[in-house]
Amino acid sequence: MKILIVNGPNINLLGTREPEIYGSLTLDDIQNELEDYAKSIGVELVFFQSNVEGEIVNAIQKAKHEWGCSGIVINPAAYTHTSVAIRDAISAVSLPAVEVHLSNIHSREEFRKNSFIAPVCIGQISGFGSDSYKLGLRGLVSVLSKKV
Amino acid sequence: MKILIVNGPNINLLGTREPEIYGSLTLDDIQNELEDYAKSIGVELVFFQSNVEGEIVNAIQKAKHEWGCSGIVINPAAYTHTSVAIRDAISAVSLPAVEVHLSNIHSREEFRKNSFIAPVCIGQISGFGSDSYKLGLRGLVSVLSKKV
Amino acid sequence: MKILIVNGPNINLLGTREPEIYGSLTLDDIQNELEDYAKSIGVELVFFQSNVEGEIVNAIQKAKHEWGCSGIVINPAAYTHTSVAIRDAISAVSLPAVEVHLSNIHSREEFRKNSFIAPVCIGQISGFGSDSYKLGLRGLVSVLSKKV
Amino acid sequence: MKILIVNGPNINLLGTREPEIYGSLTLDDIQNELEDYAKSIGVELVFFQSNVEGEIVNAIQKAKHEWGCSGIVINPAAYTHTSVAIRDAISAVSLPAVEVHLSNIHSREEFRKNSFIAPVCIGQISGFGSDSYKLGLRGLVSVLSKKV
Amino acid sequence: MKILIVNGPNINLLGTREPEIYGSLTLDDIQNELEDYAKSIGVELVFFQSNVEGEIVNAIQKAKHEWGCSGIVINPAAYTHTSVAIRDAISAVSLPAVEVHLSNIHSREEFRKNSFIAPVCIGQISGFGSDSYKLGLRGLVSVLSKKV
Amino acid sequence: MKILIVNGPNINLLGTREPEIYGSLTLDDIQNELEDYAKSIGVELVFFQSNVEGEIVNAIQKAKHEWGCSGIVINPAAYTHTSVAIRDAISAVSLPAVEVHLSNIHSREEFRKNSFIAPVCIGQISGFGSDSYKLGLRGLVSVLSKKV
Amino acid sequence: MKILIVNGPNINLLGTREPEIYGSLTLDDIQNELEDYAKSIGVELVFFQSNVEGEIVNAIQKAKHEWGCSGIVINPAAYTHTSVAIRDAISAVSLPAVEVHLSNIHSREEFRKNSFIAPVCIGQISGFGSDSYKLGLRGLVSVLSKKV
Amino acid sequence: MKILIVNGPNINLLGTREPEIYGSLTLDDIQNELEDYAKSIGVELVFFQSNVEGEIVNAIQKAKHEWGCSGIVINPAAYTHTSVAIRDAISAVSLPAVEVHLSNIHSREEFRKNSFIAPVCIGQISGFGSDSYKLGLRGLVSVLSKKV
Amino acid sequence: MKILIVNGPNINLLGTREPEIYGSLTLDDIQNELEDYAKSIGVELVFFQSNVEGEIVNAIQKAKHEWGCSGIVINPAAYTHTSVAIRDAISAVSLPAVEVHLSNIHSREEFRKNSFIAPVCIGQISGFGSDSYKLGLRGLVSVLSKKV
Amino acid sequence: MKILIVNGPNINLLGTREPEIYGSLTLDDIQNELEDYAKSIGVELVFFQSNVEGEIVNAIQKAKHEWGCSGIVINPAAYTHTSVAIRDAISAVSLPAVEVHLSNIHSREEFRKNSFIAPVCIGQISGFGSDSYKLGLRGLVSVLSKKV
Amino acid sequence: MKILIVNGPNINLLGTREPEIYGSLTLDDIQNELEDYAKSIGVELVFFQSNVEGEIVNAIQKAKHEWGCSGIVINPAAYTHTSVAIRDAISAVSLPAVEVHLSNIHSREEFRKNSFIAPVCIGQISGFGSDSYKLGLRGLVSVLSKKV
Amino acid sequence: MKILIVNGPNINLLGTREPEIYGSLTLDDIQNELEDYAKSIGVELVFFQSNVEGEIVNAIQKAKHEWGCSGIVINPAAYTHTSVAIRDAISAVSLPAVEVHLSNIHSREEFRKNSFIAPVCIGQISGFGSDSYKLGLRGLVSVLSKKV
Repeated sequence: MKILIVNGPNINLLGTREPEIYGSLTLDDIQNELEDYAKSIGVELVFFQSNVEGEIVNAIQKAKHEWGCSGIVINPAAYTHTSVAIRDAISAVSLPAVEVHLSNIHSREEFRKNSFIAPVCIGQISGFGSDSYKLGLRGLVSVLSKKV
Repeated sequence: MKILIVNGPNINLLGTREPEIYGSLTLDDIQNELEDYAKSIGVELVFFQSNVEGEIVNAIQKAKHEWGCSGIVINPAAYTHTSVAIRDAISAVSLPAVEVHLSNIHSREEFRKNSFIAPVCIGQISGFGSDSYKLGLRGLVSVLSKKV
Repeated sequence: MKILIVNGPNINLLGTREPEIYGSLTLDDIQNELEDYAKSIGVELVFFQSNVEGEIVNAIQKAKHEWGCSGIVINPAAYTHTSVAIRDAISAVSLPAVEVHLSNIHSREEFRKNSFIAPVCIGQISGFGSDSYKLGLRGLVSVLSKKV
Repeated sequence: MKILIVNGPNINLLGTREPEIYGSLTLDDIQNELEDYAKSIGVELVFFQSNVEGEIVNAIQKAKHEWGCSGIVINPAAYTHTSVAIRDAISAVSLPAVEVHLSNIHSREEFRKNSFIAPVCIGQISGFGSDSYKLGLRGLVSVLSKKV
Repeated sequence: MKILIVNGPNINLLGTREPEIYGSLTLDDIQNELEDYAKSIGVELVFFQSNVEGEIVNAIQKAKHEWGCSGIVINPAAYTHTSVAIRDAISAVSLPAVEVHLSNIHSREEFRKNSFIAPVCIGQISGFGSDSYKLGLRGLVSVLSKKV
Repeated sequence: MKILIVNGPNINLLGTREPEIYGSLTLDDIQNELEDYAKSIGVELVFFQSNVEGEIVNAIQKAKHEWGCSGIVINPAAYTHTSVAIRDAISAVSLPAVEVHLSNIHSREEFRKNSFIAPVCIGQISGFGSDSYKLGLRGLVSVLSKKV
Repeated sequence: MKILIVNGPNINLLGTREPEIYGSLTLDDIQNELEDYAKSIGVELVFFQSNVEGEIVNAIQKAKHEWGCSGIVINPAAYTHTSVAIRDAISAVSLPAVEVHLSNIHSREEFRKNSFIAPVCIGQISGFGSDSYKLGLRGLVSVLSKKV
Repeated sequence: MKILIVNGPNINLLGTREPEIYGSLTLDDIQNELEDYAKSIGVELVFFQSNVEGEIVNAIQKAKHEWGCSGIVINPAAYTHTSVAIRDAISAVSLPAVEVHLSNIHSREEFRKNSFIAPVCIGQISGFGSDSYKLGLRGLVSVLSKKV
Repeated sequence: MKILIVNGPNINLLGTREPEIYGSLTLDDIQNELEDYAKSIGVELVFFQSNVEGEIVNAIQKAKHEWGCSGIVINPAAYTHTSVAIRDAISAVSLPAVEVHLSNIHSREEFRKNSFIAPVCIGQISGFGSDSYKLGLRGLVSVLSKKV
Repeated sequence: MKILIVNGPNINLLGTREPEIYGSLTLDDIQNELEDYAKSIGVELVFFQSNVEGEIVNAIQKAKHEWGCSGIVINPAAYTHTSVAIRDAISAVSLPAVEVHLSNIHSREEFRKNSFIAPVCIGQISGFGSDSYKLGLRGLVSVLSKKV
Repeated sequence: MKILIVNGPNINLLGTREPEIYGSLTLDDIQNELEDYAKSIGVELVFFQSNVEGEIVNAIQKAKHEWGCSGIVINPAAYTHTSVAIRDAISAVSLPAVEVHLSNIHSREEFRKNSFIAPVCIGQISGFGSDSYKLGLRGLVSVLSKKV
Repeated sequence: MKILIVNGPNINLLGTREPEIYGSLTLDDIQNELEDYAKSIGVELVFFQSNVEGEIVNAIQKAKHEWGCSGIVINPAAYTHTSVAIRDAISAVSLPAVEVHLSNIHSREEFRKNSFIAPVCIGQISGFGSDSYKLGLRGLVSVLSKKV
């Protein structure tokens, strides 16, 4: 089983800047950690990060047939609140997706409470730092397993 | 480590009615499953379910000193969207909490998108069926472990 | 055929206070009147009143299997406008329900125009004083009869 | 006692089109059924249907002095949500009125929840199909009887 | 100089019903009074009243070429708040118009504060009872005189 | 194949007034032009225009059985934004409909952006002047042809 | 009979600046014109203009007992849309008031449609240039005369 | 004179938790302090606290006839913003009530600015810590004294 | 200890007009009463009333250094709902303030529920007539005493 | 005459995925079909599709001078509802544009009703599947022809 | 060239109070600094500060003809968000104006984001402390120079 | 000192198109002008323009460590109103930023009044044409100088 891990804008800055706020884990660290976890449950990961909304749309479109993925874990970051294009991409491809967030988006600015993406996903996980990815991956794999 | 698992109104109906919609797992089944999982990671659980908002407030108040819990996993169900009292209870006691939902509340009626509870929690997990509890428990335990 | 008649908060005050406003009929008077009417059309009634939202949820949950009722006539009173829990309870049990109100809620404060309950009921009747219950019962019985 | 039964736009299509949705009762059937019921309680009916808002205003204006009616049962249909003119007509003539709807307007599109008419009526009944008229008539007659 | 006086729905009820509220002047009385005033300033009047929105549109369309009018005084009554059609009719014909109201629409229900008609008129006059027409006529004649 | 062409309020004024704004084409010119086009693709047209909302409802009701039409092209003009009755008429009859507008309603007043009619049509075309009718007719005929 | 004429902020600029927009009449011209008219109907005027909200409140408070006025014609200008203080002053003194505007406030910016003052006045007149004052005075005098 | 002092959800936690935020006074301390003050002005107090909305409704219903109270001082806490049931209870019983809050609810989250309770009370006092109760009691007693 | 008592627009009318509504106490009476009370608890008062928003800002600016006051009791009256300037003045000077109202602003027009001033005050007291000042003074003095 | 045909995000997925929903026509099929139609009316087409908002802006900027186009037919897809940048690009270049949609955007989610693009276009066409492009092209060519 | 520098309410408090927040520059310091800068670019300044909205209106009215100014730099402070009168004054006089703010009004309370003044100015500058004035003056002088 | 100058979508069109509206200055002209000014105050500039939101995010991320900049002047153009990603990028990197606009965004369409970017900047400057950049640069340099 192969899963696409998508990260949206500014996630590539993690760890290298303002570590007192975002922690000292870089995106690489998080991805390594996640890959270890994935291996332990027999899942292969494909990583993708971009600051460009349309490239994230491209990646989601390639997930199934080009990259052979069965599902998507996506942290759309800022695009969570503004991107109908990513929503439509997830709706259009026939892959289950899970939306994850490092921080608790419900306790931040009002505009961060709305997600265009979550309504077309299986579910949403927010607030657990880098653990949000692991929980999201685990939840997704569980859903995919039941389908079989 | 002991964790309080709180279930709000109508969760007690699970499994016994409309199994084609909500699945055939009863609340007992879910709690047993969760207890097994908890044992496997060395955590003890206290279960509480009530249809009465104020009794849920009572339970949250008792969690720490009377029941010796270190954290709360709560599915506030319908009270998610209407209860400032449960929000204030979580704020008032000094215990980390995680909000979980069986269904994806972001893809249902408009009024279900607002949560009074999530802003005072560590995070929110929705959409994974009974797995939401396991993911929530795991996330909470991970946060509690880091604190130590 | 057995029908559950649910009355929400403050309905128990009827008749004993401010009779110049609410009329001199007590809740007992209304229930006796309704019981006479029910008998005349061969229907048995179960009465329930509570000021506690969660106890109304409890009653709705018990209606079918514990009390053997085929339908519900409910005056949710103040909870009409604030209770998602009662809405979810009616959705969850498989019993047709009718929402009734003594006064015309459409000609009162703005916040009384919204009903969380009506969308999951067969219909809503408001404005006919104690006759609202009789009309609601008659409408419900008619729907139930057609189903048979 | 004579009562005016007013039906608004598109109600004249009932039964002749899309019977799988609206049932096979035509407006004539409903009116015959209602007339039988009215006779059984000693009430005479005047029927009026129009697709033209202003003609409904005209009919309401004629109800008392030209047609000798003591009350009005009105299904304003689409005009429920858009007609201040019908509201003002009911306010202007000194006749009690009851608003009825075949379907449960509270479980349809958002714009159907607002009624310009209900606030100037005795009450509103919705969701009981053709029975809504009978319940409305019964409720109105009961109010008129108490006045005498 | 000829002016069209348009009255909208329910204005035909004036004086004959509820005189304690609306005064004992009928629409005929008001029109006679207004005609006397018009004569005294050398103006001829054409009167039109209808409860039908579309007939008011018709009348406005006929005002100039068929009836030879140079301006319009209109009390759109209930259609003030709901009719884009009357607004468009006034915009489409090249005649100055004045909106008048018997009552002060700014001190009534919230929905009566919005006028679709006023933005395409010279001005609006409300609150002076039957004098609103005289003031409106006088204001209109003054504008028309200046144009010459 | 026969198609009903419905024009709403004030469309009858086209060409005869303010030609510098609306062009010098009268409604007759537009209809002749459209009829020529219709003949060239083997379609017969029935024309209807009214300033009265309810008469437009009447016409839509007659389209199929009385007039033998297979579809409707409608320019609801001002009623686009205010008429639930026309919406319900289109929903009630089993004929595909297309909403057309001479001007681009999206670049005018805010209240003109909402259409009660478009959601129950195949689609909406706005901004092409008299060509909007031809485009709408062509689109409708194409849909009808595919159905056969 | 003595009437207070109140003019709000920036009205003192009339005529002296941008005559192509606001006309060449100065506030003095308007007041002279109005005084001539007032004399012709046997009414004495007291003029007051200020750019300071609180001084307008002061003037309204003095109108009756200090200045012996029986009524108020007020053009609150910009304070129409922001001053609860002037509204409360008019409510507090026992003098009928009329709100007037030079321009048609209903066809300007959205925020100019709301008037805090109009709901506590007899009525509102807008759009007739300097004639608005004369019409307002005439309307007010008519109301005062009927009271006697 | 006997007064009912009602405290809503989570007020029972005062002083025992997070003393650095809420102060070290427990609810008992506050009640003792208040009782001393009450004695000094010759007033007897009945104390009631519950986390359950419906039990607060019950208590308000019992205040007059069962407990012989002449007025109510209520800190509805979280229910201030969500409970129509408590509002209706206060409206239904014929006892003057005063709403009090420890903190200044006007300087907290937006949703805490709305009170369903205050409109049916004599007044509201917020922001004075435990002194809010004393001020509320004093204000209530003063109102009750004037009534005699 | 010296306290500034600020009264906003129209408060100077109290007692001299419409005594049946506002009571027969004049502002002087209220201030005398308040001064007596203040003396009894050893506090000196400075009184200020103005109908001009900016003069109230001036007074608040002078309170501490020019007039030697330690706190402010302010009834902003109409400016409660419109004045950011008074809010900013209170924020800018380093003096604790209490907002008071004679009437219960929560049971009046919708626009009176918002206070620009309360969020920068210790608290708000409304609804106790002239007692609101005494309660406010007492509350303020209590806060100031604790500071010492 | 050369026209630019712009397709926004996810339109490249057409036909290859979920053919039961979107039909079996691929974007290539649609473009071929459209090219045939264009040839038949003597028009040359330039095709552009991108999932990246900014690249669509780039394409619109190149349309006139680099690619020699006289007009634009654009299906902005998801960017319809979120892109001010595309709106500004169309405003900035001096080329007439037509907005087209495959589906009827007026009968989908609420957020799809708003178009940032339509107000700066000649018009909008939605709901006719691949025919929307042909209708849009035809309408645009007709407008361009009249200009010559 | 002479420029009017207007400062609104509470700006006179700068520097003398809470220097740790607002800096130690007084309004005099800022004005001296600004005057030095103005001299260096050959511009003369007129300073005006008031806490009274209407006096600021007065000053703006006097700017051109009485004081001989060619432009205005205004920090309306709190009146930014509430004063239509100052907006109208700037519109009425024929002088270019620039709105400046010490703090970044876009990162403060929600109500501070709306400016009634900015839409009638050349532009707005916020967030640069006392430099905002210098930048505003420079920008204004540049605009004025281009006009010549 | 090195500063990054970022220009958003469509700014690259300046001067080459519609010079009568936007002036004849191209983006190159503006940048040359700005570079001259920068040199005169000893500042080096890095220029970046893109129509792609995500590339602007990329540039902001590179500003400090790759390009050695100490601050950012950004004209986000259309992305001002829609980009949370650019906002988050500015928040994430530790560089002070200033938002500038050629036109006065406060006097354009309603949706242009909201800026997602300004709240995370030092300040905002709008309305001064190409001078906005110079004013922004000067303001930014002044802030940076004070920091040193």
